[in-house]
Amino acid sequence: MLVFESDYTEGASPVLLQRLVETNMETLVSYGNDKYSASAKEKIKAAVGRDDAEVFLLTGGTQTNQIVIDTVLAPYEGVISATTGHVNGHEAGAIEFTGHKVLAIPHELGKIPASSLRAYLETYYSDETHEHMVRPGMVYISHPTEYGTLYTKDELTALSGICREYDIPLYLDGARLGYGLESCGTDVTLRDLGELCDVFYIGGTKVGALCGEAVVFTHANAPKHFFSSIKQHGALLAKGRVVGVQFDTLFTDGLYFELARHAIRMADRVREILRSKGYKFYIETVTNQIFVELTPDEYKKVSENVKVGFWERTAAGNTVVRFATSWSTKEENVEALAEVL
Amino acid sequence: MLVFESDYTEGASPVLLQRLVETNMETLVSYGNDKYSASAKEKIKAAVGRDDAEVFLLTGGTQTNQIVIDTVLAPYEGVISATTGHVNGHEAGAIEFTGHKVLAIPHELGKIPASSLRAYLETYYSDETHEHMVRPGMVYISHPTEYGTLYTKDELTALSGICREYDIPLYLDGARLGYGLESCGTDVTLRDLGELCDVFYIGGTKVGALCGEAVVFTHANAPKHFFSSIKQHGALLAKGRVVGVQFDTLFTDGLYFELARHAIRMADRVREILRSKGYKFYIETVTNQIFVELTPDEYKKVSENVKVGFWERTAAGNTVVRFATSWSTKEENVEALAEVL
Amino acid sequence: MLVFESDYTEGASPVLLQRLVETNMETLVSYGNDKYSASAKEKIKAAVGRDDAEVFLLTGGTQTNQIVIDTVLAPYEGVISATTGHVNGHEAGAIEFTGHKVLAIPHELGKIPASSLRAYLETYYSDETHEHMVRPGMVYISHPTEYGTLYTKDELTALSGICREYDIPLYLDGARLGYGLESCGTDVTLRDLGELCDVFYIGGTKVGALCGEAVVFTHANAPKHFFSSIKQHGALLAKGRVVGVQFDTLFTDGLYFELARHAIRMADRVREILRSKGYKFYIETVTNQIFVELTPDEYKKVSENVKVGFWERTAAGNTVVRFATSWSTKEENVEALAEVL
Amino acid sequence: MLVFESDYTEGASPVLLQRLVETNMETLVSYGNDKYSASAKEKIKAAVGRDDAEVFLLTGGTQTNQIVIDTVLAPYEGVISATTGHVNGHEAGAIEFTGHKVLAIPHELGKIPASSLRAYLETYYSDETHEHMVRPGMVYISHPTEYGTLYTKDELTALSGICREYDIPLYLDGARLGYGLESCGTDVTLRDLGELCDVFYIGGTKVGALCGEAVVFTHANAPKHFFSSIKQHGALLAKGRVVGVQFDTLFTDGLYFELARHAIRMADRVREILRSKGYKFYIETVTNQIFVELTPDEYKKVSENVKVGFWERTAAGNTVVRFATSWSTKEENVEALAEVL
Repeated sequence: MLVFESDYTEGASPVLLQRLVETNMETLVSYGNDKYSASAKEKIKAAVGRDDAEVFLLTGGTQTNQIVIDTVLAPYEGVISATTGHVNGHEAGAIEFTGHKVLAIPHELGKIPASSLRAYLETYYSDETHEHMVRPGMVYISHPTEYGTLYTKDELTALSGICREYDIPLYLDGARLGYGLESCGTDVTLRDLGELCDVFYIGGTKVGALCGEAVVFTHANAPKHFFSSIKQHGALLAKGRVVGVQFDTLFTDGLYFELARHAIRMADRVREILRSKGYKFYIETVTNQIFVELTPDEYKKVSENVKVGFWERTAAGNTVVRFATSWSTKEENVEALAEVL
Repeated sequence: MLVFESDYTEGASPVLLQRLVETNMETLVSYGNDKYSASAKEKIKAAVGRDDAEVFLLTGGTQTNQIVIDTVLAPYEGVISATTGHVNGHEAGAIEFTGHKVLAIPHELGKIPASSLRAYLETYYSDETHEHMVRPGMVYISHPTEYGTLYTKDELTALSGICREYDIPLYLDGARLGYGLESCGTDVTLRDLGELCDVFYIGGTKVGALCGEAVVFTHANAPKHFFSSIKQHGALLAKGRVVGVQFDTLFTDGLYFELARHAIRMADRVREILRSKGYKFYIETVTNQIFVELTPDEYKKVSENVKVGFWERTAAGNTVVRFATSWSTKEENVEALAEVL
Repeated sequence: MLVFESDYTEGASPVLLQRLVETNMETLVSYGNDKYSASAKEKIKAAVGRDDAEVFLLTGGTQTNQIVIDTVLAPYEGVISATTGHVNGHEAGAIEFTGHKVLAIPHELGKIPASSLRAYLETYYSDETHEHMVRPGMVYISHPTEYGTLYTKDELTALSGICREYDIPLYLDGARLGYGLESCGTDVTLRDLGELCDVFYIGGTKVGALCGEAVVFTHANAPKHFFSSIKQHGALLAKGRVVGVQFDTLFTDGLYFELARHAIRMADRVREILRSKGYKFYIETVTNQIFVELTPDEYKKVSENVKVGFWERTAAGNTVVRFATSWSTKEENVEALAEVL
Repeated sequence: MLVFESDYTEGASPVLLQRLVETNMETLVSYGNDKYSASAKEKIKAAVGRDDAEVFLLTGGTQTNQIVIDTVLAPYEGVISATTGHVNGHEAGAIEFTGHKVLAIPHELGKIPASSLRAYLETYYSDETHEHMVRPGMVYISHPTEYGTLYTKDELTALSGICREYDIPLYLDGARLGYGLESCGTDVTLRDLGELCDVFYIGGTKVGALCGEAVVFTHANAPKHFFSSIKQHGALLAKGRVVGVQFDTLFTDGLYFELARHAIRMADRVREILRSKGYKFYIETVTNQIFVELTPDEYKKVSENVKVGFWERTAAGNTVVRFATSWSTKEENVEALAEVL
């Protein structure tokens, strides 16, 4: 059975594991104050192009969203998200657990249109009773989105502008950021995020690391006592080196981007195969996630040969599935798809 | 200026105040263990027709929703509500403050259709990844709804049936319950709620009390140590008598229902006047809340003479406003409406 | 049976009830924006002697402590309290419910000595690992304390000085503030609190009101969007007038202080009687709370005639009980004590 | 400079790293549902000797304490801990963050004496006002304690008996469990914990793993929907294999115990050296943590040659420091101590 189910079914890029082995017996200070974590942070700041950025290393995506959102928001504020946002539907209430409402607004292919954001904020502030409602304190977007789509630089710039107009930070969930940045046709760079976002994270878990996400506060705007807050949220690793060594390696010689490019090349080839076989794309994407809508017959054939992600059943009785590639996808498995589909 | 803005702009029914005065210097035990609170609870149980009901007296509506929902839900559960539910939009995030997500689903005139509820639950349980999503642990409805509409007994029965099928408690927010029960044409009685709901509250604040809501757990199903939970939520009144005396009085000789009937008579007359003047009803209601859609000219005239509640601006440029009557509405003011509108 | 159990066993000063009756049918705006609440706030500001004070009216003591502490603290901070502080032991975890640790330090007769506070802060900041510990973000004291004792102005000044040195707000719980201010021999005035505290509350429930506490932020330092936070905590009264009218009345013609003086006169007489009968004072107090240590025989006699508050059993087998007087204590009942003891 | 600062300054046992490398490119299901996690759980159950145990793998100690305590307690309950308990002082308020009070009681060398526990519970339940206090819902102990001391089997049995008498679960924090179990003279085995505790965790981070703790609910008593709760707390690893492979390896051929024994051998030798040099032990321990009280001169000498953990300054002006050994302590470094001390 071929597996294209998700982008976290293998361990880590062997280069990272090798570095963990090499540094394993070095005696290092704990809680992320080690030299590898420090080096990782410097390299990330350089890649983002901001001297005033503050970088923190955490372990997983939901944890990162929970901590960033909870510490950036005032206790009485909520976070605006697309209804399809990961924080709204698939984190088991991790945001509400910390006391904050997710203010879900309509999406377009997983993205928040600038016009929707503006309309939401205008409606909120023009409502005389808005002090009885949850104050919008942050905008959450994901890039790539949960639908594998990407914002354009213009779209991001528009969202960023509205956020600044309303003095609300813009937070970008980059669980799959590498795959977004290396997709064909995108005009959004890591440096753009440093300009347009107030905080974002660079996903490691899905882009070649065993675990680890790097949070970037772009302009010396990390919440006060963020270290203590990480501990308070139960998220401080004693051996911070585990994530530190991995990110230090990922941001050495462009490895992070190279790993991402591989996944995109594989995804482009999967798209080519699917298209040539006449499959219907549910959403057009250029990232490592590919959504196709299968008739019952097609679904049967696919299911027998390929493990894919189930997405939803359509009203017409078709099944939407996701093919995901990753840094670890093998070319031979992609080509094998051409035969079984 | 005539005021039809809301149903909490006057103090309390003079009968209640009189009883507060009469009992004022009696020495009573505190924290709601006084004889008037006990008597109120017994009278409410009798009115609901359930010996196994457990009744608690709280101070306000948001507080009641917060405590009931937080204590009935398991910590990992959320509450299903119509998008228009008070807990979803107008309680400043009081539910999320206690760690729970409000799972908002579409409404029809403020009501949750049974089909929507079933669809939501079926979708949730059929999703293989549902353990990553917030588990629905309660259904919240309001009666009358935020739009002044009422469930029929059949509709409530259907919702109740689904809740029992899925082993999820049904909670009814009765902030304006009296007005719902006394509206013309409703077939829902207090005893029906005792059968169909797992917990509901009888609103006092909006139906003639200074403050106070009576929570009814219908079948010996109050959360364990609910008294301590009330204290933990900051909601335990030292002088529980304040609410106890009021509810004891409201449920003596049917005062609660009498106060409500007055408001409905007044509302029916307001409806008559509005209809005769050609105003357009935005929603047809039989309760004490009346929503009309005003053209700019109409809005100008109304605004100059009557203080009403602003509801929303329509796409067509009209304004929806709410006229609310209450136990304290004066007949002469209603008739004055006929002149100024 | 004579009752000296607590200071909240009767309703309200009849003057307050009378004003509630007189204003009952006035149509007023809701949520505390009514003219009586506004007037109450102005009178309180005048009594405190600070134009820059911000006053809010809440319903009960635990609620007030919970909201003030939660909104003044940063989410990662805790509140320093004496081990005997009400927030530490007798509020069912209402502070922790909002995510904050109570940092309990040793007391002397219910008071925090300045030296203990300084020692605690010095130890905290000199500990290299203090970022793994809860940051002290506020000092909570009560006046009178839970033991009926009072701070002197010098003691308060010392605590206030340390708080300012460490940039930590000083919060005073004045559930029984009136009784403290009117006790014989105290040199602390309401104006002193306006100078020395950052926030304090003037207790109404125990000093003549049905319910209600007035929070005073002394120097334009109310937390941002405090109104929304009150709602979020479930504590916003629809009919804010209920507390507004009461505090407006309490602070008209010095009624609050007059009610308190009565309780102190009664307590002084109770002390006189107890002393003359040879009872042993457990703690020497000048406020409305009197603690005596009873031998088993004495306890039997007292229990048969007077309802008092049980405090604790001593190692020697004696019983400590509390006699409390209040604004409502009847002189004849006090004199009756002389006969039965 | 020799380093004896803590037991988490190196990476992982090379055996674990090797297995991570060997299994790295295997395609495995995510979120801890992989075969290595399953195997690890079975091996742990076998080692504990309970078929009805339920095992979960988490990432770090504070996270584990937070999730176990929050999910086992009812929302209105608190956890009893020694004042010196890690959850009380050194987790930045992670327990209170989830709404629960830590009910701190006096310790003896870091341990809770059974008599203290009984006294606390008796006092609580005999207090008529205990419904206003936080209900004790769990007992937290650590083994080894924060002072490096160990419970005897008799002591654990006594605590366990009281817990069962009061129907309160006993939770044992085993961050350094291996070191406790392998210390000379202890009579407590892993199987004993399976009998006496309701839940405990086997620490990986400090005993040879990169990260990871194994929670054992000993008798089919895991909280309902614990998987969702882990996610809700932000603690679910996408690549659960990272911890699964490590624990599978640790519990193969007794590696976990072997690693621990090494640390104890090293600690015993450090004790021998310190004793022979005349250093004064602050507490007598048999585990991998050694506390000595140094005069200023001694402290100077030690500080110049060895990195140790600072513990506290004594009233007499001496300094208490901690020497810690671990699975990774090199024999040559221990012997070097003999020269520099």
